Amino acid sequence: MYANCIAAGQLTWSERPDPVPNVKQVLIEVRAAGVNAADVLQVRGNYPAPPGSPDDIPGMELAGVVKAVGSEVRRFNVGDRVMALVGGGAHAELVVADEGTVLEMPRGLDFIEAAGFPEVFTTAWDAMFDQGGLRPGERVLVTGAAGGVGTAAVQLAAAAGASVVASCRSEDRLADLIALGAEEAHLPEAALERGPFDLILELVGGDGVAAGLAHLDIRGRISVIGLGAGRSTQLDLSQLMARRARIFGSTLRARPLAEKEMVMAGVRRHVVPLLAAGRLRVPVAATYPLELARDAYQRLSDGGKFGKIILTS
Amino acid sequence: MYANCIAAGQLTWSERPDPVPNVKQVLIEVRAAGVNAADVLQVRGNYPAPPGSPDDIPGMELAGVVKAVGSEVRRFNVGDRVMALVGGGAHAELVVADEGTVLEMPRGLDFIEAAGFPEVFTTAWDAMFDQGGLRPGERVLVTGAAGGVGTAAVQLAAAAGASVVASCRSEDRLADLIALGAEEAHLPEAALERGPFDLILELVGGDGVAAGLAHLDIRGRISVIGLGAGRSTQLDLSQLMARRARIFGSTLRARPLAEKEMVMAGVRRHVVPLLAAGRLRVPVAATYPLELARDAYQRLSDGGKFGKIILTS
Repeated sequence: MYANCIAAGQLTWSERPDPVPNVKQVLIEVRAAGVNAADVLQVRGNYPAPPGSPDDIPGMELAGVVKAVGSEVRRFNVGDRVMALVGGGAHAELVVADEGTVLEMPRGLDFIEAAGFPEVFTTAWDAMFDQGGLRPGERVLVTGAAGGVGTAAVQLAAAAGASVVASCRSEDRLADLIALGAEEAHLPEAALERGPFDLILELVGGDGVAAGLAHLDIRGRISVIGLGAGRSTQLDLSQLMARRARIFGSTLRARPLAEKEMVMAGVRRHVVPLLAAGRLRVPVAATYPLELARDAYQRLSDGGKFGKIILTS
Repeated sequence: MYANCIAAGQLTWSERPDPVPNVKQVLIEVRAAGVNAADVLQVRGNYPAPPGSPDDIPGMELAGVVKAVGSEVRRFNVGDRVMALVGGGAHAELVVADEGTVLEMPRGLDFIEAAGFPEVFTTAWDAMFDQGGLRPGERVLVTGAAGGVGTAAVQLAAAAGASVVASCRSEDRLADLIALGAEEAHLPEAALERGPFDLILELVGGDGVAAGLAHLDIRGRISVIGLGAGRSTQLDLSQLMARRARIFGSTLRARPLAEKEMVMAGVRRHVVPLLAAGRLRVPVAATYPLELARDAYQRLSDGGKFGKIILTS
């Protein structure tokens, strides 16, 4: 197969041996794959692949067609249209994925949208529901809402009956966020004033965390999953106590397979049906041919996009 | 009745009308009452009583004998020996308490020990179990372990099958902490090196929170319930994310009655049996006559004690 391989801090389109599934894995022919910030960091050498994943081929999510299945795989057959979350290796013609992290593609969805679903919706599901315990009727602030995880989170929280305030730095995106289901969309400082919030999904990080704490409701939670604005913040612990608040961080990538499979089981059960019903969609900002991943990564690094960057083959 | 009343920032032993229980309350003749930091803060005007509690009589925990019961009280009868957690008013000859916050005194326990039980053990229970999800086999660090909540927490965590590291600033207390069930007891910096911890019960606050985060295990939690060392800390959010950690604060006093009753139901079910079985004890540092509460408060403010300060009548 051909793959986007990391060599000397650059991506090179080059030939590699086909990956071979183990007994619990499926081999997937990649039709489309999402590009994520982690991929860009991995190329720069700042974010090593988790154990068991190819260390020189990035790519964490994809959609495609099953080409082969291991002897213990029960859920999938050759020819199935699937989407998957993997530890790496998706920016290639072929990839192997553990059965528990593969999802059936709903009918009517195309590969481009499907490829942009797993990473952001799984991250948003885990951060807001598994970790954050979001319940209907709660008020949620999503910061950095115009990004991939943000657009997923706004839709998912709204579909689950929460009242969503979306914030982003670009005034041009506010109407898009309303169209995704946000009740209100504001620039960051104005958004905070629309609290108090039961849950803040913090995709920007830095001092936004401390600022958010001041606008939490009693028993409010802050789920920190992005640190673009900085990794440090000066926290007022008396506010934490007075509000009986919780602040927590989460990353999916570093978790053991068993934990990822538990999260994906939640996505399969609770999120995929919303996608199948047309209540969630995957905004796509741009597509690039698979072999031009380098250009796609550059586009992601440039920022300012709305929706996912997708590679297609 | 006579009560310790706040007047012009001082306590005065003076006569007041007897409190009258509502239909769901019991009237208790106070035999002994614990002194807590919140009482001292309340006298100074820094910690107003919660709604529904007397605003000028401090005292949050007591043991005594039921003198009267409201018409809807089912659990208690006149003459019962009880202990209770109240929003205030316990440093008096009589106090009313909501049925759901009153606990039966185990046989064989005296009023002095019983009076020192509710506040610290309920706080420790809530912070470590209800909020912190502590489970057997986990490794727990209790900071400020020589104080009231600390001595309760060390015993409770050890009795529940956790492995407890206790830290305090006084070398003289380390042996006492081992005697309470801590597996190890150290000065603060050395204690941190004994991690990684699944749960840190942070009774000191300030930069201890940030230092603790660096010594948490994957999925570790920090429960912040004391801020003696400061209310602010510079937090490394990347550590939070890498460890999938949670930091949360809690105070009991400000919660609505229904929530307090839920916590007390947990204490009644899970903690009182350990007290009755002799697996928990209430270390008492000193007792003072009820009418000399002012001296007892001074003793508490002076610090350096091991165990509770108790008023007796």
